[in-house]
Amino acid sequence: MAVQKFSLSGFPEWLPEQRAVELRFLDIVRAGFERHGFMSLETRSVEPLTGLVQGGDVGKEVYALRRIHDETKDAGLGLHFDLTVPLARYVVENAGHLAFPFRRYQIQKVWRGERPQEGRFREFTQADIDIIGRDVLPGFMDADAALAMLDVLNELPIPDITMRINNRLLMEGFFSGIDISDSAPVLRVLDKLAKIGEDGVRRELSALGLSASQIDACIAISRIHSANDEYLERVAQLNVVNDDLDNGLTELRSIANLLRDQYPTSITVDLSIARGLDYYTGTVFETTLNGYESSGSICSGGRYENLARTGKTTFPGVGLSLGLTRLLAILFGVDALTVDRATPSVVLVAVVDEENRPIAQSVARDLRRRGISCEVSPTAEKFGKQIRYADRKKIPYVWFPDTNEVKDIRSGVQVPASSWEPAMDDLHPSVTFEVEESS
Amino acid sequence: MAVQKFSLSGFPEWLPEQRAVELRFLDIVRAGFERHGFMSLETRSVEPLTGLVQGGDVGKEVYALRRIHDETKDAGLGLHFDLTVPLARYVVENAGHLAFPFRRYQIQKVWRGERPQEGRFREFTQADIDIIGRDVLPGFMDADAALAMLDVLNELPIPDITMRINNRLLMEGFFSGIDISDSAPVLRVLDKLAKIGEDGVRRELSALGLSASQIDACIAISRIHSANDEYLERVAQLNVVNDDLDNGLTELRSIANLLRDQYPTSITVDLSIARGLDYYTGTVFETTLNGYESSGSICSGGRYENLARTGKTTFPGVGLSLGLTRLLAILFGVDALTVDRATPSVVLVAVVDEENRPIAQSVARDLRRRGISCEVSPTAEKFGKQIRYADRKKIPYVWFPDTNEVKDIRSGVQVPASSWEPAMDDLHPSVTFEVEESS
Repeated sequence: MAVQKFSLSGFPEWLPEQRAVELRFLDIVRAGFERHGFMSLETRSVEPLTGLVQGGDVGKEVYALRRIHDETKDAGLGLHFDLTVPLARYVVENAGHLAFPFRRYQIQKVWRGERPQEGRFREFTQADIDIIGRDVLPGFMDADAALAMLDVLNELPIPDITMRINNRLLMEGFFSGIDISDSAPVLRVLDKLAKIGEDGVRRELSALGLSASQIDACIAISRIHSANDEYLERVAQLNVVNDDLDNGLTELRSIANLLRDQYPTSITVDLSIARGLDYYTGTVFETTLNGYESSGSICSGGRYENLARTGKTTFPGVGLSLGLTRLLAILFGVDALTVDRATPSVVLVAVVDEENRPIAQSVARDLRRRGISCEVSPTAEKFGKQIRYADRKKIPYVWFPDTNEVKDIRSGVQVPASSWEPAMDDLHPSVTFEVEESS
Repeated sequence: MAVQKFSLSGFPEWLPEQRAVELRFLDIVRAGFERHGFMSLETRSVEPLTGLVQGGDVGKEVYALRRIHDETKDAGLGLHFDLTVPLARYVVENAGHLAFPFRRYQIQKVWRGERPQEGRFREFTQADIDIIGRDVLPGFMDADAALAMLDVLNELPIPDITMRINNRLLMEGFFSGIDISDSAPVLRVLDKLAKIGEDGVRRELSALGLSASQIDACIAISRIHSANDEYLERVAQLNVVNDDLDNGLTELRSIANLLRDQYPTSITVDLSIARGLDYYTGTVFETTLNGYESSGSICSGGRYENLARTGKTTFPGVGLSLGLTRLLAILFGVDALTVDRATPSVVLVAVVDEENRPIAQSVARDLRRRGISCEVSPTAEKFGKQIRYADRKKIPYVWFPDTNEVKDIRSGVQVPASSWEPAMDDLHPSVTFEVEESS
C-alpha cells in the first residue's frame, strides 16, 4: 500500500485502501469506547479565538477564520487545536443536561496552524475519551479511562504498546522535598534528557541555579522506570521526605496496579515523563508503539483537577487522546498495514446484456436485503472482462444471473447461487498488521 | 428532547441524546451506501482558495484561514463548502490509483461563511455519494446512485419522502425549441414560481424580453409534475419540436422508471425543478420530506457530464448529497425523534463497597468480552442510589455482584446473572420517529 505524497503539505488524504484501514480502526476505537460506557459527542470545529488563546497555551498554532466576503476583519473564530478545550466549554454550557460522571468519547479532526516547512500534520484526527465529574471524581476513574484506551489499543491491528505512567503530585512533592519551589523549568529541562544527554541536563539545571545535590536527585528520579514495583524502593532510596511525594506515590501505585492487573506486560511506571505535567494535576499517561519509540507518543493524557469551572462548581476530569492520524502515518510509513479490498462490495452481479440489466438489478436488491454489499457490473461486456473488473477491485465473488451461479474468483470455485453463502470473513474488508522480518 | 439554542449562531452542537440519534442516522446512512458498493473517502477540510473560488460559483460564502501567528497574510486556504469540489480534485490527483467507475461515499462537515444574522448553518454534515466514470458513464448510473440514496432514506426513521426528478437536456431542448437561446436567466425566474406566483414570473420573464407565447410555454412546462407517466403526454401537448427535448425526455423516463420500479410511491417527475440546472448537465434530483415541504430539499444532486478534466481525460459523474444536519434540525425542531438512552451502557455493575470494586471491575470485563457495553458504578452508595444513577442515564440493567443477580430496572424483574441475557433491542440505543397527531 504505497504512501502517496499529500498534495497539500500537512493535510493528509488517504488512498481508498488506506481509508478502508482507517475506517476499520475507527470502528474498533468506537466499539471499544462504547463497551466501556462512553457516549459519543461532537463539538463544533470552531471556538471563539478568545477561548482558544486563553486556554493556557498561547504558543499553540491556531487557524483563524475570515469570511471571504468580509475583507476587513476576522470572524473572531478559530479552528480547535484539540478536543479538550471544546469539551470544557461544552460541559460548562450544558452541565444541566448531563449526568455526572460524564463519560464521553469524541473522534474528530483538529487543526494546527503550523508553518508548512515543519512537515507536521496541520489537520489530523484524534480519538479522545474523558470522564468528567461534578466537584468530585474518584481516583480510580484514572484507571477506568486508561482501561478503555488499553482495550482499544489491544484490539487494533498494531504493534504491542507500552503505556508509561507518572504522577504530577509525586514529582511536585519530590521537588518540594529537595527545596525546589518552581518545578516547571526543571521539568522542561528533564524532559530533554534523551535528547541532550545527562551532561546537557546537568548544565541547564545548573544554569537554573540548582545545587549539585539537587541536580543529582533530579537526574536520579528521572532515571526511575520499571515494569514492576521496583520503583517504590528506588524512590525510597532517594531519601526525600514529603507528604505530596508519598500521596502521589500511593496514587501512582494504585493506578498502576489496576492497569497491570489486566495488562501485565503493557504498563511501565516512568518518572521521566515530564511532558504534560504543566497541564495535568495528577496521573499522566504516555503511550508508544514497541519498536517505534522514536516516533513518539501515540496516546497521551492525564488528570485535570480543574478541567472547567462555573460559579462554585468545578469539573475535574481525566482523559486520554489517541492520535489516530499519527498512528496510521507511522504504520503506513513502514507498509505494515494491508487491507484485502477498498470496496465494501462482496459480490459483483454480472450483466448478460443491457436488455437484461434489470435482472441483475433485482439480484442485487435481494443480496442487499440479505445485508450483502454488492454492485451491478457497469458494462455488459464478455464475462471475462466483467470478472477482470471484479478482480481489479478485489471483489471476491461474481454472480452470473443467466445460470444463477456464483464464482469465488480467488479460488475459481463456482457453485449454484441457491447453495451459496459468503464466508463471514468476506463480508467486510479485513485489515492485517504485519512487519517484514528484517533478515 | 429539547432543542437547545446553539451558543454560536450557525454552529450546531447536539445534546448527548441528539448526538445518539445522529450517530444512529450516520450508521444507517453508511450501511446503506456500503450495501450499494460505495467505498468510503475522506478529503482534507481545506482547499486552496483558488480552487474554491474558480469552482464556478463565486457567490459561495467561504471561510478563509489565517495562521494566528502570521498576522500579515492569509494561508491561501479555505474550508470546503461542499464535498464535490474536493472530490473532483481528488479524482484528478489520484486517478491512477482508482478503479472506474469509482463509487465513493463521503460523510463530512462542510462550512459556509454566511453572515451570522441569516440564521443558516455555517457548519453542517453532508453525506454524499457519487459515481465517477473515466471518459464515459452510462445513463443508468443516474438510477444506480439514486437507488442507493432511496434505500438509505427508506431505512432512516424519518417521514416518507418525495424525490423529484427533472432533466437539464430536456429543459434546454424545450427552451431552444421555443427560440429562447439563453436559458439560465429564464430558469432562475421560473424557480421563483412558488415564491412570487404566476403573475410575478410573467412580469419578470417579460422583462427578459420573452414574448407572450414563450411565457405561456415556460409557465406550462413548469406546471408539469406527475407521479406516473402522464407528464409524457402533457409535454407532447405543448407541441415543441426539438431533438434535445426528445432525448432528455427519453433519459428522464428511463431513470424515473428504474426508480419507480423499486419505490413506486416516492418518485415524482417535476419539470419545475430549475435549481441546480446551472451546474448539472442531465438528470437532476431534489428530495423533500412529506409534510415538511416548506423546509426545502434535504437531498439533491444530479449528473455532471464534466465533473473534472485532466489532459484528454474527462470524468463524468452523478451524485446525490444528503443534508444530514438539515434533516436532523427539521425533525428535532418538531420533537419528532426520540432515543431511549444516550449512553451505550447496557449494564451498570453495582459496587458493594470500595474494597470490592475489583469484583465489579471483573464482572464488567467479562461483560465487555461478551460485547455488552457496561460501566461500573462510580460510587459504592446504597444500591437504591446506584439504581437511581442507572435510571438517570436510562441504563436498562443493574448487576449486583454480591448476589450475582441482574435487575431490569424498567420492569423491576430480577434474575440470576447466570440465566441472564440482554434483549437484542437493548444492546444499542434505539431511535424512534413519531409525530404527535394534531387534533
